Amino acid sequence: MERVRPTDLRPLSDVSRFAAEADVIVVGLGCAGASALIEASDAGASVLLLERAGGGGGTSANSGGLVYLGGGTPVQKASGFEDDPDEMFEFLVAVSSPGADEDKIRLFCDGSVEHFHWLEAQGLPFKRSFHPEPSMESATDDCLVYSGGEDAWPWNEVARPAPRGHKPQTPGKAGPFFMQRLLRAVERRPARFEWNALVETLVVDADGRVAGVVARRAGEELCYRARRGVVLAAGGFAMNPDMVRLHVPQIEPCVAKNGTEGDDGRGIRMGQAAGGDLLRMDQAEVALPGTIPHRLSRGLYVNEHGQRFINEDTYYGHIGIEALFGQRGRVYLLLDDAVYERGLVGLEPAHVAGTIAELESDAGFPRGALQATVELYNRAAHTGEDPQHHKRRDCVVPLETPPFALVDCAVERFVYACMTLGGLRTGASGEVLTPDGDAVPGLHAVGRTAALFCGRGYAGSGISLSDGTFFGRRAGRAAVGAT
Amino acid sequence: MERVRPTDLRPLSDVSRFAAEADVIVVGLGCAGASALIEASDAGASVLLLERAGGGGGTSANSGGLVYLGGGTPVQKASGFEDDPDEMFEFLVAVSSPGADEDKIRLFCDGSVEHFHWLEAQGLPFKRSFHPEPSMESATDDCLVYSGGEDAWPWNEVARPAPRGHKPQTPGKAGPFFMQRLLRAVERRPARFEWNALVETLVVDADGRVAGVVARRAGEELCYRARRGVVLAAGGFAMNPDMVRLHVPQIEPCVAKNGTEGDDGRGIRMGQAAGGDLLRMDQAEVALPGTIPHRLSRGLYVNEHGQRFINEDTYYGHIGIEALFGQRGRVYLLLDDAVYERGLVGLEPAHVAGTIAELESDAGFPRGALQATVELYNRAAHTGEDPQHHKRRDCVVPLETPPFALVDCAVERFVYACMTLGGLRTGASGEVLTPDGDAVPGLHAVGRTAALFCGRGYAGSGISLSDGTFFGRRAGRAAVGAT
Repeated sequence: MERVRPTDLRPLSDVSRFAAEADVIVVGLGCAGASALIEASDAGASVLLLERAGGGGGTSANSGGLVYLGGGTPVQKASGFEDDPDEMFEFLVAVSSPGADEDKIRLFCDGSVEHFHWLEAQGLPFKRSFHPEPSMESATDDCLVYSGGEDAWPWNEVARPAPRGHKPQTPGKAGPFFMQRLLRAVERRPARFEWNALVETLVVDADGRVAGVVARRAGEELCYRARRGVVLAAGGFAMNPDMVRLHVPQIEPCVAKNGTEGDDGRGIRMGQAAGGDLLRMDQAEVALPGTIPHRLSRGLYVNEHGQRFINEDTYYGHIGIEALFGQRGRVYLLLDDAVYERGLVGLEPAHVAGTIAELESDAGFPRGALQATVELYNRAAHTGEDPQHHKRRDCVVPLETPPFALVDCAVERFVYACMTLGGLRTGASGEVLTPDGDAVPGLHAVGRTAALFCGRGYAGSGISLSDGTFFGRRAGRAAVGAT
Repeated sequence: MERVRPTDLRPLSDVSRFAAEADVIVVGLGCAGASALIEASDAGASVLLLERAGGGGGTSANSGGLVYLGGGTPVQKASGFEDDPDEMFEFLVAVSSPGADEDKIRLFCDGSVEHFHWLEAQGLPFKRSFHPEPSMESATDDCLVYSGGEDAWPWNEVARPAPRGHKPQTPGKAGPFFMQRLLRAVERRPARFEWNALVETLVVDADGRVAGVVARRAGEELCYRARRGVVLAAGGFAMNPDMVRLHVPQIEPCVAKNGTEGDDGRGIRMGQAAGGDLLRMDQAEVALPGTIPHRLSRGLYVNEHGQRFINEDTYYGHIGIEALFGQRGRVYLLLDDAVYERGLVGLEPAHVAGTIAELESDAGFPRGALQATVELYNRAAHTGEDPQHHKRRDCVVPLETPPFALVDCAVERFVYACMTLGGLRTGASGEVLTPDGDAVPGLHAVGRTAALFCGRGYAGSGISLSDGTFFGRRAGRAAVGAT
């Protein structure tokens, strides 16, 4: 039970004393809060940052560090890839449909190159290099990857494929480095920071304008006044079991949820209390890491009916969503001995057999179904084609080398890495919108406290850090009244 | 643009005069509002009913009139079907998962027989007879039908199948008759009715308790005081294009939306303004009437990859949801000459050919895919079996009689009848809940203003009228303070 509930709005007239005041209060110091702080500060505002943890980073610091950027960034150009905002727009709209937010996507695509330069100006280097393993950030310090299936069917027919996942220049996992550099940029601004300060609810004036926050620090309740606005950058709700069960029950059984304890949905609920609408609370990112490395795309994903359901060479996030939401997490990865790689962690086969017929029977597939699937696939694969699911040629090889193996990717047994994507409904600068579409005065929400900007699904790896930083910046400026 | 927005909450202190007052105000006179009114009145409360149309009925009157009831109703018993609350519970939980609301389902199953008698006491007769055509209410006055795929895979393995769709005793479409009788029961109560009164927003007191409503009638703004509570029974949002686009974009292209102009989401938005949470806004009922009559279940539904995706003999609402949400409305119905019925409205084939191979090529399916599907199906069908999708034996016949036909069921070309199922999050008696799970004092929501009680998906035909009447009754009693 929460002591002060996020929906216990505090009337301004009830606050007798403010511990501090500032033009803008930013709640949470992941990538979205950091970007809002920097821009609000650079626009001349005094900023107060409240963070429930002992330091900045949030879930952003646990990410892979990819940033989704395009439209002709210096890295894309140096690596020989043509891209422009229109092609990027076409891809993002298609992959986020139905229900794509074309206005926000347009802003994001048109501003993407500028945003790249801004990130570099904050101290985030990006090597001018391409990493050819799709969907997977480099283990080296190389930068650019296809991170959203842009070069896979059907997206490769929708727009000219271009890699847009930008990894900051550091070996290995780049999330910690990404936030370390962004936090250094934050520290260069004259903001005030309160650590271990859990924002419990919002302060509103008699007109419903958000005028500050109530926080708890070391057992003490403290109120903070925001003269111009509050930016909620307090994370999503992946770590709130009740909210997950209500809104995205499909990810409840997933053991790996991307989040920190801050992702308890408190920011979302505070925004609702102030009048904010909810959007896309049913959506989630689901990464199925079985498709890493990409060589395994030569195998076949099959559902409980023994049927393929997606081109195996696409972004593992698209496979994950389809596997968990479309196939209820009841999927197998079928490999033959030529494709299988011994010793690959997490890929111990559940069934191995000398023929597909035996494998089908052992695993309890419908009689004939797996055989029909493999026969159909192999027949075309001999000519390098996959007419049914349009897998790219170099991933299409007939599965004919016994023994054959099935990896059980059931949600109960396999790693599905999930993150919530729904949250407050916001306008183009993160202004929190009411169910009527009006802005809640004085309130902005960014990062996973807001619904993912582009629409349904998960466009590609890096889209969360892009969302947080790009719209975080816009919210920081808008909260000050700058544009 | 709405004149007074639903989120423009009216402070009680701003209301200088009330046009009328009552213990309980019910907003909307569909089946949910009618049931709330009757029970509140029978509990001794004075009731004021405000309806934006010129008379009662709402979307309930446009329905098929089926009511989902079970657990051993007199009709089930007289027709020779065994049912009990536990079997009904198992079915409803399974079909509404993930995310089933077990508490509400338990209440509903345990109270279902009593609810049947209550409906009869209101003047709704149910003939003690069974209609053997599944998923389809009788054209006669016969009563009982399988209306949720209870006797189809996989539900027939989850619980003992029992038909639970109860059609009131009238020939043809029973929705008008159902509401006519319920409205007569309403008229027998000493309530006050205001017609053509559009409730625009809620009145709340200084503590956030809902204390009345603001309505507009004949150009005049009128405020009404509710001494004990307000019950929102104001419909869903199927007729609000903006809300549909935001929350259920999949049904945007559907031409047939179940609703009246009252289903503009205003009730939901008013409840949000008073602090109510949203739930399952992404869910919809989708009826794919191509499966009517049931004889066509001998055909095969195939997706754009030429694959089957569901057992064709199940409830057409389950097929509809899977076709629209799972297969993005890109589906065909494959029939051979023995199964096809000439002259059946809406079933003109898009392609006809002498062989499956030609049909596959004509319709642009992936090479070999449709042939593989039909071969696999026919092989087992010769023994009356469908190991892949478990269609019942009498629907399983090999498709071998040329010519073969494909009916294009693309969402742009075919009738998908849709209704929104998301709405306010409520407790067991329709009390509107905040994001923290607390009740908003003085406010209840029922029918499609609330999220469908049982969970995700659409359990079966008749579940909406059951939801409205059963939880409408509970809300009516709770609003009075009765239990």
